[in-house]
Order: sequence, then structure tokens, then C-alpha cells
Amino acid sequence: MTAPLKVGVAGLGTVGASVVRILGANAEEIAARAGRPIVVAAVSARDKGRNRGLDLSGASWHMDPSQLARSNDVDVVVELIGGAEGAARACVETAIEARRPVVTANKALLAKHGVAIARAAEAAGVTVGFEAAVAGGVPIVKTLREGLAGNRISRVFGILNGTCNYILTRMEKDKLGFAECLAEAQRLGYAEADPTFDIGGFDAAHKLALLASLAFGTEVDANGIYVEGIASITPFDLAMAEELGFRLKLLGIATRTDQGVEQRVHPSMLPKDSAIARVDGVTNAIEIDGDAVGALVLAGPGAGGDATASAVIADIIDIARGIHMPVFGAPASKLTAPVRAPMGTHHGGYYIRLSVIDRPGAAAAIATRMAEQGISLRSIVQRGREPEIDRPNPDPVAVVLITYATNEAALRVALDAIEADGHIDGAPQVIRIEKR
Amino acid sequence: MTAPLKVGVAGLGTVGASVVRILGANAEEIAARAGRPIVVAAVSARDKGRNRGLDLSGASWHMDPSQLARSNDVDVVVELIGGAEGAARACVETAIEARRPVVTANKALLAKHGVAIARAAEAAGVTVGFEAAVAGGVPIVKTLREGLAGNRISRVFGILNGTCNYILTRMEKDKLGFAECLAEAQRLGYAEADPTFDIGGFDAAHKLALLASLAFGTEVDANGIYVEGIASITPFDLAMAEELGFRLKLLGIATRTDQGVEQRVHPSMLPKDSAIARVDGVTNAIEIDGDAVGALVLAGPGAGGDATASAVIADIIDIARGIHMPVFGAPASKLTAPVRAPMGTHHGGYYIRLSVIDRPGAAAAIATRMAEQGISLRSIVQRGREPEIDRPNPDPVAVVLITYATNEAALRVALDAIEADGHIDGAPQVIRIEKR
Repeated sequence: MTAPLKVGVAGLGTVGASVVRILGANAEEIAARAGRPIVVAAVSARDKGRNRGLDLSGASWHMDPSQLARSNDVDVVVELIGGAEGAARACVETAIEARRPVVTANKALLAKHGVAIARAAEAAGVTVGFEAAVAGGVPIVKTLREGLAGNRISRVFGILNGTCNYILTRMEKDKLGFAECLAEAQRLGYAEADPTFDIGGFDAAHKLALLASLAFGTEVDANGIYVEGIASITPFDLAMAEELGFRLKLLGIATRTDQGVEQRVHPSMLPKDSAIARVDGVTNAIEIDGDAVGALVLAGPGAGGDATASAVIADIIDIARGIHMPVFGAPASKLTAPVRAPMGTHHGGYYIRLSVIDRPGAAAAIATRMAEQGISLRSIVQRGREPEIDRPNPDPVAVVLITYATNEAALRVALDAIEADGHIDGAPQVIRIEKR
Repeated sequence: MTAPLKVGVAGLGTVGASVVRILGANAEEIAARAGRPIVVAAVSARDKGRNRGLDLSGASWHMDPSQLARSNDVDVVVELIGGAEGAARACVETAIEARRPVVTANKALLAKHGVAIARAAEAAGVTVGFEAAVAGGVPIVKTLREGLAGNRISRVFGILNGTCNYILTRMEKDKLGFAECLAEAQRLGYAEADPTFDIGGFDAAHKLALLASLAFGTEVDANGIYVEGIASITPFDLAMAEELGFRLKLLGIATRTDQGVEQRVHPSMLPKDSAIARVDGVTNAIEIDGDAVGALVLAGPGAGGDATASAVIADIIDIARGIHMPVFGAPASKLTAPVRAPMGTHHGGYYIRLSVIDRPGAAAAIATRMAEQGISLRSIVQRGREPEIDRPNPDPVAVVLITYATNEAALRVALDAIEADGHIDGAPQVIRIEKR
């Protein structure tokens, strides 16, 4: 058996502690698979004194993660600090300069600087593994980069944020409001004190940018993503989805279209018997549509220390095995500049909830505005709240429209006209329908 | 860009033709990911004259697959002939002798000779890729061997045969009998003219043997698998499953127990809201339970030319990228001899359907025999067919028992005693319940 692979772990939070623990607990299996033992030779964290329940006696301690990255103690640098800049970025860049392979769970760093990091790593002849940056323990990076490498991929989409899926699942099953479910998720540790990054869709967007690059061979383009969060979703929307044969999920979706690549994160209606629609709670799930394989679905824990560590350790074992590959599958020099398909050209069905002022002609005017833009309606649902048919309701009533596939630009024109006509109260709720 | 990788394809059936076609159609993407072009340099098939709609002008033709494997035209030998012996085995062995890496979809060959082939390949310094041998396009081999390499795996199980899942789905949804659904599957090309290999569970067993080796680091042990097929399943069993909160699937299950490794293929009841239970039709789906990752589920097309070719081509691209790995993840010399857990020690719940002769004392006798073996019953369902409660039914009635977890040996003793008591007509239907 060859010499041990010496790992330096920068960052001993939940994931870092799990990495150290599991490398110890499963050392025998890991050595058999890796062809050599893997040992933690160095660690870096802010607080040296804190008891993490870990045996770190064999590891050197570095206050500065970049010092760890430069240290001759380590063969591989594992960056688990987080953040697109600062200590994390310096640690990764220092490791690459020192010609050490890197493993990271840092989606923000790669979404922002992924192509530059890939170029630097490939020039230095080292790899950067980032399985843990997308969907936690689900090996989606390896699946796209290797498992489906023979496919021309048309779409990759799924549930990339467990916090949002937990909240939507709770709202749906228990008919609760968004704020109440968010507070509960925070109590359970599924959501941060400042939840914006999760519920605003930004976390999912970082992950989607990495998936799109892997799927389409394009440069990472996190700024080209259309992002909506889930804060506007109401129990009524979830109930209507159910009634109309859908489930409502926050999806990250990257599609190849005639116009370029569409990258979107937004609440979406999915046919309720589709694989992704059925995924509840904090689980992540991703579907990949490839020309050869058809539809492949992966589902598993998208967060948590041990699950994320599973992905980190898989990348470390790949390095121990001598697997060497460009960061995004194809070399950075071969990644194409992404052509952004504008949202106006998005083609699909829509769920539209209008708060309609209940007076004669309102329905006709709305239908006319849709027709003017060539938009056909598949379903119209309006329910008076009281069984009184003598006179219109003085308060606005909810009207839900399901359109057949249309262009987003046309829909926006129609909705602007409907608003200008004065028949509706407040902005329309618009939720895209994602086809199976 | 380095020189093209020259592929020899032995066997131009459905999968072979798809491999040749997709390597051509996606040549650009594949070359970018592989770091070099991949070309079909040689082919072998029985009938040279047949029009397969393929451009084979650049490829040399070999009547004998072993001649192709020896040919200096090829860098990689792709074996798609099938069968555990004969031309397929000779082709693979010849390629390894000639120090050429091999890619194969041949589960029968690897289930029978996998360890010997791995030893020979590792001695020759070449790889044998077999992603396509298990679950078609689903990258389960790579997931177990690489994606979850840091995990200690406790169980891998799932739907490994699309033919059986199609038949069971049809029987369940449309309340049809087994024979009728089998005939339909044959008409649709989902089942062979001789369907024994699929419906008897033997195809799933071959795949399970390979998964168990990858998951547990044990030598392939296809002879150690307990196998039951689906021919005894009735629409009544499917309806009762539904009523009792289960779905009925043919599963392949490999579990690590205190007694050793349990490998079983048999019809199984699964909680109806579990991920594998929800998979319908010809789709394959596999769950892996790892100590770090938790539960990971992969689902996708388990058969078909293009989906299987997707897996074959992924293995070819790995070879083009210079990825070199032991066949079963750990070197053949490190695989441990499997310790077979006997079925008598299997611990779990059971669905038991008895055809009970309806006379006083029958129910009491059955319950007593179960109690004597320490078996607790979770549910008992008996329905008289007519609303006549004056006298017992002259014909036997179906009684369904659901047990709490017990040992299979104890259950068999109880059932033998019930049979000996003469209260039942015909053999009991026994279906194991697989826990979530």
C-alpha cells in the first residue's frame, strides 16, 4: 500500500467536523477503496480551544487557512470555510498556487469565481472537487461530469434548497402560512436567522449556475440567473395547485433553448405525479434530461454535516485514486461563453392568480386581454365566497387562470393591460408551470 | 488535443447500434469532455450484410469478437454480445490478455466470473467498466464505487427489473391478472418470448450480486442470492397491499446484518409513500443507505438501447480520461469472501395470505400457532364474500395477516404447523415487508 494521503481541513464547522470524524470512523473501507490510507494531517479553525469531540492529535493546527494551504504537511486542501471572498478564496487560491488539489463545498466561491479557479487549477495541474457544493450528499456533480458524459443534456432541474422545500411542504400539508412555517424551520435549524439567502432563491441559484456549466459546457454564469423566492406563496396557491393536478416547488431550472441557455430559480407548478413533484421536506432532488439516457432522477439529503461530508470525502478519495479531471468536466479553455436566453422568450404554461374586482365585464375584459396576445386558457377557476348569486361580491375575488404554453413576453403584455384596465386589485401572482 | 481513442464494438444489437450512433452524433461534446476524440475503429457482429442504419465506413469488420479484441486497431474493447460464456467471455478474456481495457454491459458474465475477470484485469493493468450491466442508464456503479466511497453502506435495494415492475404496475392499476399483463409486456417488447429470466427474478439477481460487491467490498456471490419471482402474485395481493398502506414491488435487496450479507430478490411490500414504492412502469430505481449520506435514491431507464449506451459511453469516456480504478472499487485481492446470512435469520415483517377453510376454531388455531413462535400480528383481514353470517362459508376464504418483525425461521415453523393443522387449503402466500 502506498503512502497515506495527507488532508488539510480548513474550517471545522458542522461539515468539517463530520469530515474528520468519518475519515476516522470509516478509515478501513476508505483505505481499501482509495488504495491508500487517508489521514487528517492539518486543520484550521478560528477557535483552537473549542471541544469538537474530535481526535485532532495527529494534525498540525493553523490559525490561517492560507498557511495550511501552503503547508508541506498536506497533499490535499479541503476548504470548508464558506463565502465567495476572504479567507475561503485566499485558501483555495493559495492551495492552487502551491500545486495542491482542492476539495470544497463552497458554492458561493465557485458561482462567482469558478471559471478563474478552474483556469488556475488546470494551469497548475491540480483538480478542484466540488461535489459537496451542490445538493449535499447527492453525487450530482459526478453524475453530470462523468456518469452522463456521453449525453447531450437538454435540461437539468430540481429541488436545490431543502429549507424552501421544507417550508412549502409544511404549508401544503398543514395549510399554514409562509411566516409561520419559516419561523418553525428556523426553530428546527433548517433555516438561518437571516433566511434571505435560502428563501429568496439565491442559494439555489448558486447551485444551479454550477449545474448548468457542467450540463452544457458553458462558463459559470451566476449573474445570468432569473431568481424569485417563495415569500409570495400562499396556502391558497398550494391548495389550487393540488386541485389543478400540480404541486408547487421552488425549482432551479437550466434549459437549452433555441435562444441560448435559460437559467431560472422560481416557484414552479409540476405535474403532481412527476418524480420531482413528489419529493417532500428537506430532501433535494434533481432530474437530468439527456438525449441518450432519457430522464434520470437523483434524490437525497441536500444538507447536513454527515451528508455533505460524504461528498467531500468522495472527492478526496478520487484524488487519492489519482483521478484527474478538468474542474467542470471539459477544460476551462473549452467552456463556451453562455448565451443567455431572455426570460421574455421563456415558453411554457402559467398559473395566474388575480384578485379581481367583482363587477360586470371584468371576466370578459381579462379574457379579451389574454386573447389579444394569443394566449389560450386551459382552466379558469373563480369561486364566490358566499352562495349569493343576486349581486356581485363587494370584495375582490380570487380568479385563477391556467394558460396553455405561451411566451412570457406576451403574458406580461396581457397582464399589464389587465392591470391598466383597473379590474384587478394588487399585482397578479404568476407561477410558471414546468413540464414533465 | 491528443490522439483519438479507438473503440472496438463487439455486438451490434440494440445497445451496440446505439453506442455507435451516439458516439457519432455527440462526438463534439464527448471529445470536449474526454479530452480527445473517441472513434469506432472496429466492429464485430454475426451478420455483416444487415443494414443497421449506421455509418461503419471507418471501422474494420471482424467476424470473430476475440479477433477484434486482439486487433491493433483498438484501444478499448466494448463487449455487447451477452451471455456468461462463449463468445462474450472469450472476447473479454482476450482483450484483458492483450492489455486492452474493456467496457461491457454483460451482467451474466460478471455475476458468474466477475472476481476472476477483475483479478486478470488488475494483473494486466487494465480496467473493466460495467456501468451498463446494472440498471441501464442509471449511473449506480459509479455512485457506489466513487460517489459514496466514503460511506459504510448498510443496504442497497431497489427495482432492478423493468419488465417485472411494468407487469406489477399494470396488474395493480388495472386489476388484471399476471398472465394477461405478461402477454401484454411481450407484445410491447418489454418481455422476452421466454420470460423466465426476468419474471423469475434471475436478471435482478445478477445485478444485485454486482451491487452487493460494490457496496460491501465482498466478492461477487451470485450463487448466494435467495430468489423468488413474481408469477405467484395476484391482483388480490396488490389490492390488499394498497389497502394496508403498501405497494408491492419485485426488489433486489442486499443488506449487511450481524449474520453476514443478505442478498435477496423477491416480491416485497414497501410503505406506499417511500421513494422506491412510487416508481412505476419500466423505470429502475435504487436506494443506497450509507452511514454518512443517509438515503440516496437514483431512478431512471433500466433498459433500452440509448439509455444503456449512455452508460457504456460514460465508461469509455472514463478510459479516455485516463481514469483507472479496480473493477469493483477495491482491488480484487482486497474483496472479502462473502459470509452469507441464511434466510432463516432474516428479520422483518410479513404479509401472509392464507386460504382458510371456514370452520369453527380455524382462526383461533392460526393465531395460536403464530403466538407459539412469538410472532405478533399487526393486522388481520378476513372478509366473507357474502353478507350471510348464519353459517360458515363452504369455500375457503382469504385471510391476510401482517406480522410485526420476526425471524423467517420462526415464521416458517408457524406456517408449517398451520398447514399440518389442516385449516388451510394450499400453500400460504408469503411476501416480505421491506422497511423504509
